[in-house]
Amino acid sequence: MKVGIIGAGSIGLLFASYISRSYEVTIYTRTENQASQINENGIILQKKAERTVSLVKALPISKWKGTEDLTLITVKQYQLTPVLEIINQLPEDPDNLLFLQNGMGHLKWLKELKNKNIFVGTVEHGALKENAFTVSHNGEGATNVAPFRGDFSFLQNFSAAVPSDFPIHVQEDYYSMLMNKLIVNAVINPLTSILHVKNGELIQNEYFFRVLTSLFDEISFILNLDHPEEHLRQVMEICKKTAENRSSMLKDIEANRLTEVDAILGFILEEANKQEKQAPLLENVYHFIKGKEPVKGGVL
Amino acid sequence: MKVGIIGAGSIGLLFASYISRSYEVTIYTRTENQASQINENGIILQKKAERTVSLVKALPISKWKGTEDLTLITVKQYQLTPVLEIINQLPEDPDNLLFLQNGMGHLKWLKELKNKNIFVGTVEHGALKENAFTVSHNGEGATNVAPFRGDFSFLQNFSAAVPSDFPIHVQEDYYSMLMNKLIVNAVINPLTSILHVKNGELIQNEYFFRVLTSLFDEISFILNLDHPEEHLRQVMEICKKTAENRSSMLKDIEANRLTEVDAILGFILEEANKQEKQAPLLENVYHFIKGKEPVKGGVL
Repeated sequence: MKVGIIGAGSIGLLFASYISRSYEVTIYTRTENQASQINENGIILQKKAERTVSLVKALPISKWKGTEDLTLITVKQYQLTPVLEIINQLPEDPDNLLFLQNGMGHLKWLKELKNKNIFVGTVEHGALKENAFTVSHNGEGATNVAPFRGDFSFLQNFSAAVPSDFPIHVQEDYYSMLMNKLIVNAVINPLTSILHVKNGELIQNEYFFRVLTSLFDEISFILNLDHPEEHLRQVMEICKKTAENRSSMLKDIEANRLTEVDAILGFILEEANKQEKQAPLLENVYHFIKGKEPVKGGVL
Repeated sequence: MKVGIIGAGSIGLLFASYISRSYEVTIYTRTENQASQINENGIILQKKAERTVSLVKALPISKWKGTEDLTLITVKQYQLTPVLEIINQLPEDPDNLLFLQNGMGHLKWLKELKNKNIFVGTVEHGALKENAFTVSHNGEGATNVAPFRGDFSFLQNFSAAVPSDFPIHVQEDYYSMLMNKLIVNAVINPLTSILHVKNGELIQNEYFFRVLTSLFDEISFILNLDHPEEHLRQVMEICKKTAENRSSMLKDIEANRLTEVDAILGFILEEANKQEKQAPLLENVYHFIKGKEPVKGGVL
C-alpha cells in the first residue's frame, strides 16, 4: 500500500517515520526546501536516547497527485482550507483520506468532499519537531481512527499492519471519538494557557478546579452530554495522568505561535450559537486566548 | 490638630510624610522594630530625584490610645478586622476615624462602630514602600474623602490645611465615591493580573477589550448602575491614562503577595448573591486570582 502524508510538522514527521516501516510513504511539505532536506537526510526519529533514520520520499505539496492508496492530512485545522482546495482540484479524487485534526469544526467541510472514503482520527502522541527532518517522540500514546464516511474494513486493514509500538485503534463512532477528545481539549488547553500552569494544577488548586468545573458545566450544557459525570471524570484523570505536562496550547502561547483555539472552542461556540444558548465563560476564555496569540494570528 | 495613622505600609508612610508638614502626626506600626527604625531615621519620602525626611513619632499599635483628634486607618481591607477589635476595646472612643481601604465590603463593619464621626476615603496615589521607613511616591494623584457618618465640616477643616501637592478633596456622597473607584478596580485589577499585562493593553487589544466589556456589563447589572456608559468611559479613560502602569493587583501577584481581590470583588459577589443574580464571569475571575495567591492566603 502506498501512503501519502500531507504536512511535515511534528505529527506528519512522526507518522511518516513509523508508518514507513510498514508502507511506502511519500510526505508532502509546504516548502521545496523542507522536501530536499528530508530527501537528503531521511526523517530522524528521536525517542529517549534512541535515534532512528527512515528514508522517506518527500515532495512539495504542489507535486501531490493524490495517487496513493491512502492519504493522511496532518496539518492543523487552521491550515486545512488550502489543503481542501487542492483536494478539490486534483484531476482524480483520491479514494481514501484520513484527517487528523483536533476539534470538530472541520467536519462541515469534510461533508462537502466528493471522495469515497473519508476517515478522521485523534492523535494522543507527544511530538516535537526539532528541525525540518527531525521529530522527538516524547509522549507515547495511541491514534484513534474512525470512518466519517465509507469503508470501515479499509481502516482495519491499514491499521493492522502498522508497527505495534505505534498503535492505531479503529473506532466505529467517529462522533463520540472526536467529542471525547474535544471536551478534554476544551477544558485543559485554554485554562492551562491562561493560567500558565501544568495540567495537574487544574485539579490540585481548589480555585482553579472550581473554574474547571464551571467551564465544564457550560460545555456540557451546550453539547447536551448524556453522561457529563463520565466526561468530567475523564478530564480529571487526564489532568492527573499528565500532571507534569504543559498542554500544547500553553506551549504555543509561550512560543508566541498560533494556537488551535478556533478548532477547539470554535465548534462549541458555534453550537451554543445555533441552540441560542449563553456561553459567557467559554467566550471569555476564547477571547483571553485570542488576545494572547500573535497579532494578525487569526486564520479563521 | 493631632493626627494618628494606623499602619505603616506604603499608604501609611506616604500620608505620614505629607500630613506631618501640617499636623502633629504619630504613626502606629505592627512591629516594635519598625517603630524604632522610623523614630531613628524619620520617614524618607522619595519623589523622582528628591528625598525629604520627615521626623514623625512612631509607636507600635499596642500603644495606641486613640487620643489624637483624627485617626487615619491605612491598612488593607483584609487586615482591618484586628484593627476594628482594637478600636472597640479603647477605653475612650476616638471621635474621628478616617478609613482608607479599597472596596466596599468593610462598610458593613463600620456601621457597627460607636464612634461619632466616621469618614471613608479613596487614594489615587502610586506609592511603594522601599523599606521600614522609606516610601517612593511614584504616581501623583489625589485623595477623596467623604463622611460615612457625622461631621462634614471637620473633614473640610482637616483637608484645607494639608500641603497643596498632596490634595485631599472632600466629597458629599461617600457611596458614589467608593462605587466609582470600586468599579474601576473591579475591572482593571483582576484582568491585568490574570493576563499579566499593563493597564493599556485592556483597551488596545481587541479581544481583551471584549473581555473587559463583558465583565463590566456583568458588574453593571449586579450594581444596578444608572449610567453604565459613564462608568465604562471612566474605566477606559483610566486604562488610557495609566496605559504603561502595572495595576497594584498584578504587582501583588508577581510578588507572590496577598491581593485585595476579596475587598474588590467580594462586595460585588455578595451583592449578586443578595439579589440572586448570576455572576459567572466575576466568579471565574475571582477564582483565577484566588488560585494565584500564595497558599493559605485567604484572610477573609
